[in-house]
Amino acid sequence: MPREFGGAGADWPTVYQAVRILARADSALAHLLGFHHLQLAGIQLYGSAQQQRRLLPQTVAQRAFWGNALNPLDKRLIAVPSAGGYLLNGIKSFASGSVGADWLTISAWDPLANAPLIAVLPAHQPGIDVQADWDAFGQRQTDSGNVRFDNVALADELVLQPASRAPTPQANLRSQVAQLVMANLYLGLAEGALAAAHGYLRDEARPWHASGVEAATEDPFVQHRFGEFHLLVRPAQLLADEAARALDTAFRRGGALDARERGAVAVNVAEAKVLAHRAAIEIGSQLFELTGARSTAGRYGFDRFWRNARVHTLHDPVDYKLRDLGRFALEGRLPEPGAYS
Amino acid sequence: MPREFGGAGADWPTVYQAVRILARADSALAHLLGFHHLQLAGIQLYGSAQQQRRLLPQTVAQRAFWGNALNPLDKRLIAVPSAGGYLLNGIKSFASGSVGADWLTISAWDPLANAPLIAVLPAHQPGIDVQADWDAFGQRQTDSGNVRFDNVALADELVLQPASRAPTPQANLRSQVAQLVMANLYLGLAEGALAAAHGYLRDEARPWHASGVEAATEDPFVQHRFGEFHLLVRPAQLLADEAARALDTAFRRGGALDARERGAVAVNVAEAKVLAHRAAIEIGSQLFELTGARSTAGRYGFDRFWRNARVHTLHDPVDYKLRDLGRFALEGRLPEPGAYS
Amino acid sequence: MPREFGGAGADWPTVYQAVRILARADSALAHLLGFHHLQLAGIQLYGSAQQQRRLLPQTVAQRAFWGNALNPLDKRLIAVPSAGGYLLNGIKSFASGSVGADWLTISAWDPLANAPLIAVLPAHQPGIDVQADWDAFGQRQTDSGNVRFDNVALADELVLQPASRAPTPQANLRSQVAQLVMANLYLGLAEGALAAAHGYLRDEARPWHASGVEAATEDPFVQHRFGEFHLLVRPAQLLADEAARALDTAFRRGGALDARERGAVAVNVAEAKVLAHRAAIEIGSQLFELTGARSTAGRYGFDRFWRNARVHTLHDPVDYKLRDLGRFALEGRLPEPGAYS
Amino acid sequence: MPREFGGAGADWPTVYQAVRILARADSALAHLLGFHHLQLAGIQLYGSAQQQRRLLPQTVAQRAFWGNALNPLDKRLIAVPSAGGYLLNGIKSFASGSVGADWLTISAWDPLANAPLIAVLPAHQPGIDVQADWDAFGQRQTDSGNVRFDNVALADELVLQPASRAPTPQANLRSQVAQLVMANLYLGLAEGALAAAHGYLRDEARPWHASGVEAATEDPFVQHRFGEFHLLVRPAQLLADEAARALDTAFRRGGALDARERGAVAVNVAEAKVLAHRAAIEIGSQLFELTGARSTAGRYGFDRFWRNARVHTLHDPVDYKLRDLGRFALEGRLPEPGAYS
Repeated sequence: MPREFGGAGADWPTVYQAVRILARADSALAHLLGFHHLQLAGIQLYGSAQQQRRLLPQTVAQRAFWGNALNPLDKRLIAVPSAGGYLLNGIKSFASGSVGADWLTISAWDPLANAPLIAVLPAHQPGIDVQADWDAFGQRQTDSGNVRFDNVALADELVLQPASRAPTPQANLRSQVAQLVMANLYLGLAEGALAAAHGYLRDEARPWHASGVEAATEDPFVQHRFGEFHLLVRPAQLLADEAARALDTAFRRGGALDARERGAVAVNVAEAKVLAHRAAIEIGSQLFELTGARSTAGRYGFDRFWRNARVHTLHDPVDYKLRDLGRFALEGRLPEPGAYS
Repeated sequence: MPREFGGAGADWPTVYQAVRILARADSALAHLLGFHHLQLAGIQLYGSAQQQRRLLPQTVAQRAFWGNALNPLDKRLIAVPSAGGYLLNGIKSFASGSVGADWLTISAWDPLANAPLIAVLPAHQPGIDVQADWDAFGQRQTDSGNVRFDNVALADELVLQPASRAPTPQANLRSQVAQLVMANLYLGLAEGALAAAHGYLRDEARPWHASGVEAATEDPFVQHRFGEFHLLVRPAQLLADEAARALDTAFRRGGALDARERGAVAVNVAEAKVLAHRAAIEIGSQLFELTGARSTAGRYGFDRFWRNARVHTLHDPVDYKLRDLGRFALEGRLPEPGAYS
Repeated sequence: MPREFGGAGADWPTVYQAVRILARADSALAHLLGFHHLQLAGIQLYGSAQQQRRLLPQTVAQRAFWGNALNPLDKRLIAVPSAGGYLLNGIKSFASGSVGADWLTISAWDPLANAPLIAVLPAHQPGIDVQADWDAFGQRQTDSGNVRFDNVALADELVLQPASRAPTPQANLRSQVAQLVMANLYLGLAEGALAAAHGYLRDEARPWHASGVEAATEDPFVQHRFGEFHLLVRPAQLLADEAARALDTAFRRGGALDARERGAVAVNVAEAKVLAHRAAIEIGSQLFELTGARSTAGRYGFDRFWRNARVHTLHDPVDYKLRDLGRFALEGRLPEPGAYS
Repeated sequence: MPREFGGAGADWPTVYQAVRILARADSALAHLLGFHHLQLAGIQLYGSAQQQRRLLPQTVAQRAFWGNALNPLDKRLIAVPSAGGYLLNGIKSFASGSVGADWLTISAWDPLANAPLIAVLPAHQPGIDVQADWDAFGQRQTDSGNVRFDNVALADELVLQPASRAPTPQANLRSQVAQLVMANLYLGLAEGALAAAHGYLRDEARPWHASGVEAATEDPFVQHRFGEFHLLVRPAQLLADEAARALDTAFRRGGALDARERGAVAVNVAEAKVLAHRAAIEIGSQLFELTGARSTAGRYGFDRFWRNARVHTLHDPVDYKLRDLGRFALEGRLPEPGAYS
């Protein structure tokens, strides 16, 4: 968050680096950190100068934690105009960080405009029921469950993006901030899995009896596959770093950002996200080929890398990211701005 | 088990088919079933005619269930000669089916012969402590934990294979019976995962908003990847069926089986096992790319396919199976008979 | 060809086996052999009893060789009704075996019926100009170039399938006969490439200086990759053999063949074709990773495996075969009968 | 080459960029350009100050072209001490650029030191017979054939590295200069293949009849696979660019370069080389899946990408690069300095 609003003034490469490092050890916590920053980015990208001046310093002052209830594919939360604002009713799924949040960003369907609005709300406002019902087999501490809204009043001044306003390239940058949080989470998971495999091979693994070598790390097949792992991680790191720099530049362009510039960032982010996705899934699953049967014992918890990566990499389908990249490479077509691209 | 000993007389293709079908729904139970049959096979392959006439009908009569405490890489169980047999002390790990077993097959290190013996024992004999401490993240109900032996008496007539006797090609067929149990378990897991993905896509999945199709099953990327899944499963099925027929023929050869015939079976089994391994791991992990984020909810339990396959496929390293197949294809060299090949 | 028409009475598994074995050494010659049999199959599947009694024994008597000018995607050859038959004008591309053929099977567009007819013609009939202009970088001796037709008379009795007649399941089996010729060609190429790599590694290759082994065949990475090659070829062989048996059964059903039975064959053939495609392309390209730089010398000609496989595997897109298999696995949907599926 | 010796003073990133761009169109010419610069680098890395001051300006003045006869695995060229130098006899294979060269870098085996020396020689000196016998199926214009030496006198002042002198980290940087030439060649080939596929799909390809789209570039499978191609090229570009910067820095360190710094460059170069290798081979082979059968016509020459990449990527085995990377990732072990690592 910019220093003018009381933040530390860290640039995006720094924020993403923090998410990535944290994800090596705990990808759920890293998710919460990344999504907290995503909500603050949303205020800066969607919100008026007045909203920014109010909400951002207040976040610092209250040490407030932000959750996400914005799932754009879930249109069950309805915003009906009411005096000075809207009345919210319905439900929102995949609300990461909703448990424990002080504030929420929400999207809600405005049936008059036939489009969604985006707003912020205190999480503890009457009528908001955070259900803490997330039970996926990974990213368990993200509490990405359902939030119910029962006659919740939303004041106009908390609406960042009315349903009637077409999103600008600047507003459309928010989905890229989110996508790059994910890429860095996946990358941190891949790095964490690599480190776990490395430590186990060095300290605990026994060489396979038919290998003829003295240490597991001397097994040619172990070395070869570890080389493959390295080549899954390194390019994803370079691409994620490049995307973070590109996003940072675009973010600082503010309202001057144009669609072409925004689209170029989306290409960079998509490249990083696909490679990070693959690195996390493949290393999270294949590491066991090297560490062997004893490494599946519960006390190591090495299955968490695959479980967390598997759940989180389903945010949006990788095949459509590949299609977007193919369209770009074939025709120079930039990804259509949306909640996922 | 042959009818002459009171068994149903099913051939190996039938037994393996049963293991595979059961593994679609419950790969731990299928493991127990398969390994029960493995122990009975061991008596037929290692045991004297007298041992077979005693142990096999008794199994039927008592409806006894057999567990495995034979892990050949774990040499911590020591057999010291004693009057009329041996005294056993030590521990054995990865003892699948040990909890609930009536009888166990064990291997124990004979320090005088500097080689292992193979024997059977009643599981409830004094001094045997089944620890029920298996805590891997998959195949949980197999209870493949530790068994401790404290001054356990082993009578000579329960020794199937003394440490001093070099194993015959017939005896060496036991590891192939075991390897093909695993191949069929993996295959059942792959088939189960495919069926789960299929059912979910048909009944619950929504098409991705950017796909432009009405149903998830109409998505070209879903269809394409499902075609890939099909091509992971089908060849593994054909190879596993072929290997089962080859093994059945070799099994019936009894003591006449020679090393070349046994080696040919080992090649067939290795082919089936590698492909089944890959089918189970890949479909178990990739199915989520098709079924999406909502399918990771705990109530579906779809992670069990990957978890069970991941734990079980580490029995012995797939890279060494590939090496064995490469040696065979390059030089006609048959796999060296051993506990895993 | 059936004995009743003077043929040797070989079943389809035998014919395909011959194509496969020949393709190990010369995939262009194998193509010509396979397509010769395809034309004879076409007469049996499309032709009337009278046409079969005339054309098949005559082929044997004249030791006639058949070529293919049937490319269904090329609609430039027009058949205009004329007294007692049609007048043909236009061009046909990808006419494999046209150079040197005594007879041709052709398809021609009938503008009145707005559909193609299928017929046979003596290749040396006036007005037929075989252009011998095939210049692809592989399958060079197949002479799969253009054939021009200039006012060529086609008598009604040589029309196997008029444009006005909807093809029966039996007629639709022809494309599967063709597809399985291709699968066996690809498989023969894969087997030939494997044999070439094997021979070179055994007789000429030097171990890499950093490998620490005495012979290239002892290099663990060589053995491992050769194991992978083996696992590309073996399943394709099993599937191709199974498909040949299924096709043979369907062929013998004659006019009684129904759409479901024909579709089941198409699934089998598609499975075999995709795996054989991959085996040929991958081994044809990857074998050099094992045999090394010196094996690229012109005198070995090892590039022919990739070149021939690459050109021939483009007959129809593998991605659509995978889509068809996915549709089948997802919904039990059989491939839509057509010239390629 | 540095300005002080009359060169243009371009840094290594610029030289490699030139090689890469040229390789898009003609990878053989790019090879010659890259290897010319490699020989000049060799003089700077191995040669004395005096040798540099003599040979480098002379190269500029004479517009001399340098070839390579240094193949370190071919020990058939023998250097016997003689008055004021050596007498050379024997043969050297894989001598890229030898046809048309004015000067050659050679390695020759010194039987007294039991090690190779490295020297330069005028290519037209009596007794040197460039055989122009290169007949590999790719990189044809590189003329990487044999050179025979028959009693060729080599003066001491042309010996850059006597056999008795252990190579310094600076001298050992030469192999990395060479390896990165290759990485950029492969990358240029991948980029060229991508551009060829792109142009053909845009201008000539027809959509597959079963695709239901109007243009080949709209086919979802074409777009998806093109996205994969993009993700093969982009990371290789980033890694090659990073490696070029690292190598440039190391090169400028001159004699102060230490083994650790040199090893870090070798890791960077290995990463780039493996990814560029894969991009070139995979796109060179797979592009046809998109462009289809008609694109194999000789007039397009699209097979040159695979042929050139296939021949050139065999310079040293990719599996040992992966092993080196695995050892580095597992143990921090730097590649052992050598002619290939």
